[in-house]
Amino acid sequence: MCELLGMSANVPTDIVFSFTGLMQRGGRTGPHRDGWGIGFYEGRGLRLFQDPAASSESQVAQLVQRYPIKSEVVIGHIRQANVGRVCLANTHPFVREMWGQNWCFAHNGQLAGFAPLPGFYRPVGDTDSEAAFCDLLNRLRQAFPEPVPVQAMLPVLVAACAQYREKGVFNALLSNGDWLFCFCSTKLVYITRRAPFGPARLKDVDISVDFHAETTPNDVVTVIATEPLTDNEAWQPYGAGQWALWCQGECAAQGASECGTTE
Amino acid sequence: MCELLGMSANVPTDIVFSFTGLMQRGGRTGPHRDGWGIGFYEGRGLRLFQDPAASSESQVAQLVQRYPIKSEVVIGHIRQANVGRVCLANTHPFVREMWGQNWCFAHNGQLAGFAPLPGFYRPVGDTDSEAAFCDLLNRLRQAFPEPVPVQAMLPVLVAACAQYREKGVFNALLSNGDWLFCFCSTKLVYITRRAPFGPARLKDVDISVDFHAETTPNDVVTVIATEPLTDNEAWQPYGAGQWALWCQGECAAQGASECGTTE
Repeated sequence: MCELLGMSANVPTDIVFSFTGLMQRGGRTGPHRDGWGIGFYEGRGLRLFQDPAASSESQVAQLVQRYPIKSEVVIGHIRQANVGRVCLANTHPFVREMWGQNWCFAHNGQLAGFAPLPGFYRPVGDTDSEAAFCDLLNRLRQAFPEPVPVQAMLPVLVAACAQYREKGVFNALLSNGDWLFCFCSTKLVYITRRAPFGPARLKDVDISVDFHAETTPNDVVTVIATEPLTDNEAWQPYGAGQWALWCQGECAAQGASECGTTE
Repeated sequence: MCELLGMSANVPTDIVFSFTGLMQRGGRTGPHRDGWGIGFYEGRGLRLFQDPAASSESQVAQLVQRYPIKSEVVIGHIRQANVGRVCLANTHPFVREMWGQNWCFAHNGQLAGFAPLPGFYRPVGDTDSEAAFCDLLNRLRQAFPEPVPVQAMLPVLVAACAQYREKGVFNALLSNGDWLFCFCSTKLVYITRRAPFGPARLKDVDISVDFHAETTPNDVVTVIATEPLTDNEAWQPYGAGQWALWCQGECAAQGASECGTTE
């Protein structure tokens, strides 16, 4: 299995604190040694760092921890391989251009016997995760040849996620840079930090931060993760089948998909 | 204008030497301050580093210079903006997935009044370069819905490049990870290094390397650039309209396109 990290904020925010906690689980406090990746949206561009090496030992991860990249939407992932060997092409997050936007996706879980119909978007690597991402984009593009507001896409998006979930475990993060969508199959938690900000202490390494000193009173920052990254804050768990759409740190839409539906 | 850097090799080779020379031209010995990027193929994966900051001052560029990533195909670029503002989305090289392969493209030049028909691949940023790359992929995918050997694609590829060249200046590098294609509109040089290897000295900074000590007798490494990167080797210039296809360091096909053809 793997671990996910997502962020949605209303001001460009650096995720060094959460990223530093997550990276420990990539071979030090956790078993996710099989690569890591993180994508930072910067305007319409996406800055992607990836490494098939364990994050706790990766030179590129050290750069990212030293280098406070500020972004409004971030998707990160550390991998413990199940489907697909350890190599760069199998390293999350995955990126595709759709409608002139950079779409970014990361998945935690495993899909059994997942063989989607071939479409325009095709996986480069061997993971069930990338195959699901390509299938999701093919469905969206077939339903909407031209871009539509995300609210109009949600029924297609949620229905696809519910179907993937029937094949196994499908916790996922998806973004086009404007919003962050999350789907919980088994395990996903979130926290929204806003004024009054307080201190936070990482679970995995002895590092604390006082967000009060790092923020302004109007900042709203939501962090989504597989497991809580701090031990002194109240992370909220999602239930099985729950999904949410985050825009600028706030929840813009949420719901729960039925399990066991078939088409 | 911008500068290009390409490499095709028969063994995974690090390009730190050439990259270090090129990076000086990003604000120190050259005026290309408006961003830089480099893509390294690693198996089917592509490791992309980009920064809209000047390469001579970029923290990410310093990492790449310290970190000997070995690859058989590399495409790099430093930018002096003409079309499109300085931002990540306008930073070369550009990447798209086609046929389950990572395609990577960088361009030196400017295309006047270039307004291709909208297709499946669409630009994320504002550059004429990315618009040309998307148009090129749309043409290839329309001609070949399923992958074909590169030799079968070459007529479509060369015809497209010849048309772009009629719109202005189109020096370009393109790869799918298996081969490196280059097209010269005004300025492009190359060198093939093979045994017996000798010393090389960068033009832009006081650094030399003895390739004899860094290579084995069977290594073949071709480097393509806008201008020679070393001052003690014989770089070969391409003529206007010339193109070449490089595989594993060797030239697999080459030719010259007619200028002034119209459809």
